[in-house]
Amino acid sequence: MSSSKNYRWGVLGTGYAAREFTSGLQSLENATVTAVGSESSERASNFAKSHSIETSFGTYDEVIHSDSVDIVYVGTVAPLHRKLCLQAIEAGKPVLCEKPFAMSAAEASEIAALAKAKSVFCMEAMWSRFIPLMVDIRSRIRSGEIGEIVSVAADFGLRQTPLSNPRLFHPEQGGALRDLGVYPISLAVEYLGMPDDVRITCAFGQGGADVRAGGSLHYQTGAIATVMADISAATPTVATIIGTEGFIEIQSPMYRPTRAKITHTSIPGPATQSSKSRSGVSARVHHVASAVKRQLLKSGKSLAAGYRGNGYQYQAREVMECLDRGLTESSTMPLSQSIEILKVIDLGLLSKNKTPTDE
Amino acid sequence: MSSSKNYRWGVLGTGYAAREFTSGLQSLENATVTAVGSESSERASNFAKSHSIETSFGTYDEVIHSDSVDIVYVGTVAPLHRKLCLQAIEAGKPVLCEKPFAMSAAEASEIAALAKAKSVFCMEAMWSRFIPLMVDIRSRIRSGEIGEIVSVAADFGLRQTPLSNPRLFHPEQGGALRDLGVYPISLAVEYLGMPDDVRITCAFGQGGADVRAGGSLHYQTGAIATVMADISAATPTVATIIGTEGFIEIQSPMYRPTRAKITHTSIPGPATQSSKSRSGVSARVHHVASAVKRQLLKSGKSLAAGYRGNGYQYQAREVMECLDRGLTESSTMPLSQSIEILKVIDLGLLSKNKTPTDE
Repeated sequence: MSSSKNYRWGVLGTGYAAREFTSGLQSLENATVTAVGSESSERASNFAKSHSIETSFGTYDEVIHSDSVDIVYVGTVAPLHRKLCLQAIEAGKPVLCEKPFAMSAAEASEIAALAKAKSVFCMEAMWSRFIPLMVDIRSRIRSGEIGEIVSVAADFGLRQTPLSNPRLFHPEQGGALRDLGVYPISLAVEYLGMPDDVRITCAFGQGGADVRAGGSLHYQTGAIATVMADISAATPTVATIIGTEGFIEIQSPMYRPTRAKITHTSIPGPATQSSKSRSGVSARVHHVASAVKRQLLKSGKSLAAGYRGNGYQYQAREVMECLDRGLTESSTMPLSQSIEILKVIDLGLLSKNKTPTDE
Repeated sequence: MSSSKNYRWGVLGTGYAAREFTSGLQSLENATVTAVGSESSERASNFAKSHSIETSFGTYDEVIHSDSVDIVYVGTVAPLHRKLCLQAIEAGKPVLCEKPFAMSAAEASEIAALAKAKSVFCMEAMWSRFIPLMVDIRSRIRSGEIGEIVSVAADFGLRQTPLSNPRLFHPEQGGALRDLGVYPISLAVEYLGMPDDVRITCAFGQGGADVRAGGSLHYQTGAIATVMADISAATPTVATIIGTEGFIEIQSPMYRPTRAKITHTSIPGPATQSSKSRSGVSARVHHVASAVKRQLLKSGKSLAAGYRGNGYQYQAREVMECLDRGLTESSTMPLSQSIEILKVIDLGLLSKNKTPTDE
């Protein structure tokens, strides 16, 4: 299904996310960026020129209230998300807001409550969920291809320094958990829900940002997720979703993947007669390798799906399709999950194992 | 270095591990299995015949005290390890004991204390550490190829059932954490040491064994390890070791790998002038993808190393080389680490999130 109506977008912010999002959006036929706003008129004007946008404003407010804007994209630094989302919703404008959706679960709940009260559409810009390969994987998982999901593992790490990427090392605008950890945590929350116990610890740099954050999410069901985020050391940046009947390995980069491998396992038969006859009560040392043999792993099957442009437009298409249908939330990225993701992040940042580390 | 002296081994147990170990050992020129023992004379006799072993005994004790046995290999089920190790050490016989080394860290400490008091060699049969690829990886890590190790992630999961593998689902003889989790935990302990905090939870099956166990190990240094073990669902069974200057991805199966990929990262340069000029105090939205570009990841380099036979003999060679040199411990698999591995397992099995799960 593709949205047919034309939507006019207003972009808040002129940084990297805003640039990438605008480029992505311009690849869609039924979307136009009609205005961009920044706290600096000059930056807004420059951004408008380089992206062929009609209007630029030196305030965010003017974009939100512009008659030529149907949907607001919040692409500023995270500390401004709450205020700008609330303003847009108050103005009755649907909102797509960058991740981290807010600075805390409390802020996210406030945004979600107002969106509900005003019946205005609002969604976190978790673009990875709308990348074609992730849509394919979701469909396979929902149809039961790998059984019930029992475990998720994901990591995202970059080798950066405060000099190479000042924003990433800013304690409020960046940080490993909010900036990178949000992807692995989003994956865990999507497939396993809100964990009953969160054990994430952070290593903080001299500038105050968490430079490494990771740990595990535990569920009453027995499911377990492990997550890792690092802004000072590169990690494979892959993800694995494990089910009772198989598993899916998502190749790097897990936030915008094009390749994965799905492995189906069959139900192993009973222990063979010969191995049974060798086993006594106290000497049944069937070892793991024999188990491996009996497991009859089917070889993995490759999954591949490219994305158009830079991949940022798929989430925008979701927003417009939801609006076409009169929805106030996306079922693929509901606000309840944005709140849950931030609850996990909040708990991680509060972890007692706050230990300083050299950046 | 290869041991030149000929050593005569006595094997305790006739199950899978004993069979594989015996086969592996027979590929070494300076090792002979001279005796095998079991609680059943018949099983011992059959084992001796099928492996061309001179002598078989219907008790473990006779093997331990046999004049034709220089080294004792304990390959029985885990609940017997403590007793048999202590007996062998008391008899002055060097011991190689299967994993899990004992049923608890307390048992392991008791064994280690006696070995020290009697100056008798003792080592856990953590064969994976002696597989050629793992030796190569250890050497690269020690020489600083990927910098300081900050994170380890590893998993080992098999799709089995109580019917297909009764021993694996026995609460004392098997279990996910003791039987499979011991490998990922061993890797974490080798490269990061004893964690300051362990958060592992288990899902227990109807038969009482933990069928899934996983979580995270946290260190005061800021390092984090994640581990996963499952006897009811297959997992990729891979491992990743992350350093400040690169990372190593060990391909499946991580317990006996032949392939890995090492990726080196370079120190990224400062943010470019153009991106700096675009960034204001409140609008510095350099996003992660720009960071990725500046990260200049060097492409990964493949590491490959085969193993001879079934790979079980490398640990035996280590034992004999240690004995040649008059050592009472292996520096690659010291008893202190066997105790630490079991401390982690003990904490995992004690976890409060004990939730029943269908097998």
